[in-house]
Amino acid sequence: MTVEIISVGTELLLGNILNTNAQFLGEKCALLGLSMYNQTVVGDNRERLGDAVVTALGRSDIVILTGGLGPTEDDLTKETCAKAMGMELAEDRHTRERIKEYFKNNIYKEIPDNNWKQAMVPAGAIVLDNHNGTAPGLILEKDGKRAILLPGPPDEMIPLFTEQVEPYLQKLRPELIVSRMVKICGMGESQVEDKLLDLIDKQTNPTIATYAKTGEVHVRVTASAPTAEVADRLIRPVVKEIKKRMGTFVYSTKEEETLEMAVVRLLKKHELTAATAESCTGGLVAGRLVNVPGASEVFKEGFVTYSNKAKRKHLDVNKNTLKKYGAVSRETAKEMAIGGALATGSDLCVAITGLAGPDGGTEEKPVGLVYMACCFGEKVTVEKYQFKGNREKIREQSVVRALDLVRRTVLENKN
Amino acid sequence: MTVEIISVGTELLLGNILNTNAQFLGEKCALLGLSMYNQTVVGDNRERLGDAVVTALGRSDIVILTGGLGPTEDDLTKETCAKAMGMELAEDRHTRERIKEYFKNNIYKEIPDNNWKQAMVPAGAIVLDNHNGTAPGLILEKDGKRAILLPGPPDEMIPLFTEQVEPYLQKLRPELIVSRMVKICGMGESQVEDKLLDLIDKQTNPTIATYAKTGEVHVRVTASAPTAEVADRLIRPVVKEIKKRMGTFVYSTKEEETLEMAVVRLLKKHELTAATAESCTGGLVAGRLVNVPGASEVFKEGFVTYSNKAKRKHLDVNKNTLKKYGAVSRETAKEMAIGGALATGSDLCVAITGLAGPDGGTEEKPVGLVYMACCFGEKVTVEKYQFKGNREKIREQSVVRALDLVRRTVLENKN
Repeated sequence: MTVEIISVGTELLLGNILNTNAQFLGEKCALLGLSMYNQTVVGDNRERLGDAVVTALGRSDIVILTGGLGPTEDDLTKETCAKAMGMELAEDRHTRERIKEYFKNNIYKEIPDNNWKQAMVPAGAIVLDNHNGTAPGLILEKDGKRAILLPGPPDEMIPLFTEQVEPYLQKLRPELIVSRMVKICGMGESQVEDKLLDLIDKQTNPTIATYAKTGEVHVRVTASAPTAEVADRLIRPVVKEIKKRMGTFVYSTKEEETLEMAVVRLLKKHELTAATAESCTGGLVAGRLVNVPGASEVFKEGFVTYSNKAKRKHLDVNKNTLKKYGAVSRETAKEMAIGGALATGSDLCVAITGLAGPDGGTEEKPVGLVYMACCFGEKVTVEKYQFKGNREKIREQSVVRALDLVRRTVLENKN
Repeated sequence: MTVEIISVGTELLLGNILNTNAQFLGEKCALLGLSMYNQTVVGDNRERLGDAVVTALGRSDIVILTGGLGPTEDDLTKETCAKAMGMELAEDRHTRERIKEYFKNNIYKEIPDNNWKQAMVPAGAIVLDNHNGTAPGLILEKDGKRAILLPGPPDEMIPLFTEQVEPYLQKLRPELIVSRMVKICGMGESQVEDKLLDLIDKQTNPTIATYAKTGEVHVRVTASAPTAEVADRLIRPVVKEIKKRMGTFVYSTKEEETLEMAVVRLLKKHELTAATAESCTGGLVAGRLVNVPGASEVFKEGFVTYSNKAKRKHLDVNKNTLKKYGAVSRETAKEMAIGGALATGSDLCVAITGLAGPDGGTEEKPVGLVYMACCFGEKVTVEKYQFKGNREKIREQSVVRALDLVRRTVLENKN
């Protein structure tokens, strides 16, 4: 079964906004086992949108459109699709009531006249209630073709898709598509592929796909099967084999679990607290930990010690260490971690010091050189990295590696 | 003159990567005064790519293609465009030499055979040297139509476009397009539009467009003129008028200057140092400041005090204040800022404490409630915000407002 996306909106053509909807829908449709060969972006123009809809319906079984469902004159998606599929518009009383309801709880006292336009739907269409806006989603079916119309704002589109369109599409397929993610940190994509090459090569069902993220690699194992149980039986041994080969580089097998969530989960499990002492990352490691709701149980405090003076004052780094080895050194990283653990009374402290550039690099200490240390009781692990890329890239990679260092430190000392 | 984009790559259709190239090119083309009506994404498939190229060349003057220029069998963009435009491929000796050179400085000892494919170019094409990879950019011209082929990785595509394609496109236009940005913080997009409504309504040349960013609004003023001087004469009074109406809400009129850059610039100008004391933002304000190369001159240190104990220990927040008013309160924010300035010896300290959720909200103190304070000498400004959205959104908005609070504090006390 083939699907394609039409993203409607002049603001997309002008580059005012990034088309995150297309990525979201692309990934979801792939997971549903639908084949996507085309994506199109068109502006708020009747003729060109009409052309795009006719072309798309001509070559694909399902066309998903986002955007152009608003109340203004510019919003043409519904009218254009109805025309292309030979359907008339009629008022949907249920939607009319919902719009009334929506505005009752809103700051506006009066309902703008043009909002009633949103209660008009193609006769026979399936109406999808939108809990985050006034434009309902719509599914138009005719002659084996389907047009699925969704509002453009991601915070309306995503819940509508996940809650109502996904189950609808799932039902169209004879087979169920189930997937599981293995998340890996500390290994490059080509290294991961090397280790999984024979598995990837012989894949048919389940399939294995790798995705490179900053400092991480995600491996998705996807199976197609008549029931969830059968799919699970197909997936489980493959996931097990991948985990065996990757060892402790695997930080999670949960789709929604981020690296910082895995770190917080692990700290909670072992009833440990962690602190941060950051120089070049300037608070971003702490920032990532605080991303996790409930992080307060394991993360109480951190230091951003960007200057040498601050490193001495708050982390008790020795003046001579800074003088002899420099701020970006194995020795300074180590003292920062020890000092941070002592100053906060935390079980662990991770410290990062490095040269993020663009200036300040030397032949001996080039831009991208980063030392990080993790202190846990008497033990201190120090690691040296030479990252590539600009200031932002170097810092991003440092943050990921620092979080992973905390994870590995807990694993090594608690298992 | 019309332009359209074809993004080539199955990984885009599958949602593995976000199509940031299309946004970049969309914005650039709009700035160049080119009209864009269509964007297409196709996979690495000869037939479908061929169809897309023929359709695009049929309806637009210029077609920009990204991706599919690599050395593998899957990379078909060059061959497909050459065929569509009736051009033969021939080896380009200059490119062959460049590939040799590229690999000389690389970790690989031998040049993979298939890389020589990248030296083949359509006869008569303009070859654009790629300094960040082996695939050259190409411009194919025939019968008044132009195909511009660029590699897919943004770190190759963007420099190629900016350095070589942009000047080429600029020359095609009889008029020069010049634009300037006015960057605003602390005011919503609709408020900004309200204040500029008469200017926006009567706009022809220059035009005025607003762009909403997290916590910021960017206003772009764009003029079309025969010379840069004339364009500047058209733009200058409009920018001046916008600045007058927006007052100190304007933090920059430089395209490339971010909010944190403006804050660091201002601190440097007045020879001031700033510190951070963060609770719910967990280090992200410090992280933004450290984004700026050379921030070390004005930012030396910061605290992440996520727990009450840490607030007391490092920032000397009074136990009774925390007990009586709670961690998320005007009083605590104030004491955090004062304590942070004292503990670091900085001229300023900004403090943030709030409820980012998803749990922990009450009727009296709902999720999204954030207090921030900025201490400057004897003066402390405290501000209360009620942000909307999820944990991430609340924290992002808090970070922007905290940076802006530092900016406004300096302005108020130093002008």
